[in-house]
Amino acid sequence: MRGFFYPQSLAVIGVSPRPANLGRAITNNLIAHHYNGRLVLIGPKGGFLFGHRIHPSLEEVDEPLEAAVILTPAATVPGLVEACAKKGIRRIIIETGGFGEYDPSRRDLEAELKDLIQRHSLRIIGPNCIGTMSKENGLVVPFAKISTSVRLGEISIIAQSGGVGLTYVNLLNSERIGINKFASIGNKLDVDENDLLEYLIEDDSTRVICLYLESITDGRRLMEAARSTDKPILIHKSNTSPASARIAASHTAALTADEAVVEAAFEQAGIIRVRQTKDMVNYLKILTKPRLKGRRLAVVSRSGGHAVIAADACAANGLSLPPFPRDFLDQFEKHFRGGVIKIQNPIDLGDLFDFSVYTTIAEAILAREDVDGLIFVHGYRGAETPDSRQFVQAVSEMADRFGKPAALTLLVEEAELTHIKTEFDFPVFASPEEAADCLRVSALVHESSLKDRSPARPGPGPDQEAVREVLFRERPGLIQALEVAGVAGIPTAPWAAASSREGVLRAAAEIGYPVALKAAGPEFSHKTEVGGVLLNLADQAALERAIAELANNLSRSGLSPGAQAPYPVVVQKMVGPGIEVIIGGRQDPVFGPVVILGLGGIMVEVLGEVALRVAPLDRAEAARMISGLRAGVILDGVRGRPGADKEALAEAVTRVAALLAANPRIKEIDLNPVKAFVPGEGLVAVDARLVLGDEN
Amino acid sequence: MRGFFYPQSLAVIGVSPRPANLGRAITNNLIAHHYNGRLVLIGPKGGFLFGHRIHPSLEEVDEPLEAAVILTPAATVPGLVEACAKKGIRRIIIETGGFGEYDPSRRDLEAELKDLIQRHSLRIIGPNCIGTMSKENGLVVPFAKISTSVRLGEISIIAQSGGVGLTYVNLLNSERIGINKFASIGNKLDVDENDLLEYLIEDDSTRVICLYLESITDGRRLMEAARSTDKPILIHKSNTSPASARIAASHTAALTADEAVVEAAFEQAGIIRVRQTKDMVNYLKILTKPRLKGRRLAVVSRSGGHAVIAADACAANGLSLPPFPRDFLDQFEKHFRGGVIKIQNPIDLGDLFDFSVYTTIAEAILAREDVDGLIFVHGYRGAETPDSRQFVQAVSEMADRFGKPAALTLLVEEAELTHIKTEFDFPVFASPEEAADCLRVSALVHESSLKDRSPARPGPGPDQEAVREVLFRERPGLIQALEVAGVAGIPTAPWAAASSREGVLRAAAEIGYPVALKAAGPEFSHKTEVGGVLLNLADQAALERAIAELANNLSRSGLSPGAQAPYPVVVQKMVGPGIEVIIGGRQDPVFGPVVILGLGGIMVEVLGEVALRVAPLDRAEAARMISGLRAGVILDGVRGRPGADKEALAEAVTRVAALLAANPRIKEIDLNPVKAFVPGEGLVAVDARLVLGDEN
Repeated sequence: MRGFFYPQSLAVIGVSPRPANLGRAITNNLIAHHYNGRLVLIGPKGGFLFGHRIHPSLEEVDEPLEAAVILTPAATVPGLVEACAKKGIRRIIIETGGFGEYDPSRRDLEAELKDLIQRHSLRIIGPNCIGTMSKENGLVVPFAKISTSVRLGEISIIAQSGGVGLTYVNLLNSERIGINKFASIGNKLDVDENDLLEYLIEDDSTRVICLYLESITDGRRLMEAARSTDKPILIHKSNTSPASARIAASHTAALTADEAVVEAAFEQAGIIRVRQTKDMVNYLKILTKPRLKGRRLAVVSRSGGHAVIAADACAANGLSLPPFPRDFLDQFEKHFRGGVIKIQNPIDLGDLFDFSVYTTIAEAILAREDVDGLIFVHGYRGAETPDSRQFVQAVSEMADRFGKPAALTLLVEEAELTHIKTEFDFPVFASPEEAADCLRVSALVHESSLKDRSPARPGPGPDQEAVREVLFRERPGLIQALEVAGVAGIPTAPWAAASSREGVLRAAAEIGYPVALKAAGPEFSHKTEVGGVLLNLADQAALERAIAELANNLSRSGLSPGAQAPYPVVVQKMVGPGIEVIIGGRQDPVFGPVVILGLGGIMVEVLGEVALRVAPLDRAEAARMISGLRAGVILDGVRGRPGADKEALAEAVTRVAALLAANPRIKEIDLNPVKAFVPGEGLVAVDARLVLGDEN
Repeated sequence: MRGFFYPQSLAVIGVSPRPANLGRAITNNLIAHHYNGRLVLIGPKGGFLFGHRIHPSLEEVDEPLEAAVILTPAATVPGLVEACAKKGIRRIIIETGGFGEYDPSRRDLEAELKDLIQRHSLRIIGPNCIGTMSKENGLVVPFAKISTSVRLGEISIIAQSGGVGLTYVNLLNSERIGINKFASIGNKLDVDENDLLEYLIEDDSTRVICLYLESITDGRRLMEAARSTDKPILIHKSNTSPASARIAASHTAALTADEAVVEAAFEQAGIIRVRQTKDMVNYLKILTKPRLKGRRLAVVSRSGGHAVIAADACAANGLSLPPFPRDFLDQFEKHFRGGVIKIQNPIDLGDLFDFSVYTTIAEAILAREDVDGLIFVHGYRGAETPDSRQFVQAVSEMADRFGKPAALTLLVEEAELTHIKTEFDFPVFASPEEAADCLRVSALVHESSLKDRSPARPGPGPDQEAVREVLFRERPGLIQALEVAGVAGIPTAPWAAASSREGVLRAAAEIGYPVALKAAGPEFSHKTEVGGVLLNLADQAALERAIAELANNLSRSGLSPGAQAPYPVVVQKMVGPGIEVIIGGRQDPVFGPVVILGLGGIMVEVLGEVALRVAPLDRAEAARMISGLRAGVILDGVRGRPGADKEALAEAVTRVAALLAANPRIKEIDLNPVKAFVPGEGLVAVDARLVLGDEN
């Protein structure tokens, strides 16, 4: 990827001197930002631009070239890419739009490009993008004008939409926050967010990585990359609703991901999920400061009302306000105008109008060991502007000195806020709510940096040989599903398959009454609804009646007429009381195997509450799934009811996860219900369902 | 209240010519804003200020005065108020702080003031406030400098915190949005938010009312006022967490309200709840435009990425994007640069760079009958600034012409955003998310304006005579609670009280087996836990065993030892299967009687899901309570299980509400469980609990 940011030489293809020409705009950016490599312009009509000759074609350039940017009509692109390849150019940015995102018929053009990429070992960014930027060497190839005031910094940006990416650049620039690298990836025909993310993780000059994504190409690789680093990774993932799916498809050919999986995956990988552009800019702002290394804050405010608002915001963001000792506060109280304000944490500066005392207070607070960070809410009064500006700068520097973040909140007119942002080199916030939200993210980033970076160490996986054998044999659905559970190491309620009356009776005698009788035919995924499950059969007489009833039910349902009904069947032991849970999983198209856990009954059936994780996962993560369920308290035993064996549940979840991770052919598995017994007594799966994909 | 905004004459008490004197600052505001009444300055040292004489005392003023503002040390305030009263001044604003909010010992001063208010029929705003403003006549009395650029408009503000109130004023001023009246109410010793709200509802020059509250004085009166008007009422209610309760108490002596009740009450009264200062300003901005009269939006964006973000934001805010007919879109497609962008709704203007076409598109969209409003997402490119400014203004005017709101979203550098806000007379937004959130509020305001404004018409209340009689008799707890349910019109499972073995057996024979036997003693509010409830007694033998067991359980519990145990008891018929719900209510200290409804079992016990409303309420509102429950689907019957009689549930809820509303002595009532039978079969309360306050 380095070649996309630091090419020694660059061809801009599609240049003409016409003012509206976009290749001209690209050239203009490269010159204005002092690109430090050799710049070669290509345009069929030739001529000159900004003192550079425009070559009619690549063939006429007699020096070797490392990279190219193409912005010409879509139909001409494959030919030009081929010309690049011939010229030995291996890094190509295609800014042209109008490919697969515009019309499915244009996918042919994309196929042609893919073929060229493979044949010539090319790497291509785009098409339908605005390209890359690297502030260090002045490589700036977007066709939109990029202000030369954009500073060099430590934040790098990957954006699926050029427009949104530029909004980030502009907003960060409004706040004097520097950028290191930028890449717009458009249709992701070849290079995708993971290629760039992995590069930026290794890139020494990038310290914080922010992404805007409308789709995720390979969720698993994204998670692995994020887990491998302690650089903060923030992702603004849009395209979360049916309303946006249509436009996203047409904008960058992006497909919608399952939001629940995205949420779980980001959380597992320590990725900060960002919901709004504005939030991204705010978070990047606070990340230019020392991290919040605990969650204990001090709030100092010039208005009591804003102190109340700030305290609410801290509570909403999981930040605490430790009370300060009286003697600590007393040393300041004498400065207050006169017995009007009672100070505490938050400190309401109310009728105190002395900036030197403010400074003393801020410093004393930042020095406290029980304070991890500060929110200072400041509104200017009267003619305080110069003093205020000096003061907030002083507090910012002081906080840096203590290695703690200070979120300076300025409740001032917009013009002043803009002035501070554009003229001073420290971040300010427009409300206590913004400040508290940002400090929460700072704490999250710190907490995430302390996490074990090694990949999840799942428990023992299933015996692969045995799993494959079970999957290979084409058994009726229920039988195969129970067999899979068994080889995966999930206990099942004792069961046996039978194909005749005698077989059923023999099985029941061996298993022991009471038993259940279940239709096992593969067609009965909703077997309960057609009367395909008969429970609590206490003895042989009841079982014999049940065989007849089952045959009758199946014939009537029209699903299994004829002499064979009701066979094959499963005879299963009725197990004692337990808490019903559902454990399942599926192959997500973006993130691969995922596992779910929910409480049975109305919680999952009606309310749909399930915990979800990307597989594989270890016992600790499985335990967090359990504790994260709102209904999880039921597993602890409530109101005198017994609880459940959470150890066994966590174990079973990891085993299902390992099964799915090792066997992509298993598209879906549901163990429902699983009966979890009291702690120490384990669990058994009572029923199971399996959906298999084609054999590989 | 008019006298606080339009006094013909005003005394400012506590003035000196010293630059730091706050009375001087008040005077300065009055002069700068051209107060059109007579201004009289009072200060013990006399002298002159801005050409006005400072009178040493009120006694020396020889003209009548209508209103006064006091800003002197707290201890001097009662004396000055008395002097005002003698002078015939009936409207007094006390800006001085340091009363009850500072130190409970200062409550004496407040008591003195209250006494004066009563004796002299005064009305007082404050203490601990920054007073009022009225732009129409230049009455501007805050001690903080108020910019003369603040415009006259249609929005009036009531703020419990002067600092937050001023932030509103400043932020609105930054957006060129005018203000009509402003009042900071501080400690609310006399005049509270309701006095002012009722006045502003009647005030012809106020069209929108916004409040910042840290506490609510009389929730019921607030709701009635809000229900009586179709002027939009927006309330930013802070002090929602334990962290803020401490500082709020010390800031404005505000007490915390129950957040669940606040939420329900605002919703019932059509009050828009605002969570953040910034949101308030945005909402006020959109309310200067025509309301969104439906929820169908068009999104037009110059960037596909922002179109995706806008579509997500619309979905999140309950706004739909109707697809436009192909022929409608085709008329514009020819203007696009070249087969790169596929237009739909949202419309991505992508490579179209022609402002006249933008105007054509915006106009055509606003003219569509299936479009209620527009979000236009605009980012300038290159040198477009003048054209862009002109264009967004044109769209704003065009939308006004069609009577639809246009939320113009400018993704530009902050300086340009500030320029537009300060130089142009239409609201702009900084992100599609803000725009969609504001349009949601515009739709809510419109929907609320269509609501029936008459007070809730609850169903028939209980027979008050009968209720009073039941409450008067001091019966054992369970018996009294079941009796109250009965007279309130809630069916109970057939029951009888008994005080002897013979009585129990006789009652059971009359009621019919199976029965339950329950200890009725008032001490047994948790009677199940001590074995005070024995269920499913099938016949006389079982009942006799149960009597002995109950006596034994109660003696062992130590709660009811001695010969009397287990009497008194309740014998109650066991009723058939139904869905268990809980119906209850209590007297909220701020909003008065509230009623709750929840599903029994884990939903309410473990997850605490209940619907809550302020009583009384009508059947329609009760029905909305039911449908608003996440677990409410269970009442419809799920997965083959029968549903419940929702009509009967709604009826019972309104009856409990009416009972509580009519009988403040009932502090709490719980009917738990109530068994709701299948539709048409009604319900019965099986158990009940009652907490009574002192008799009046």
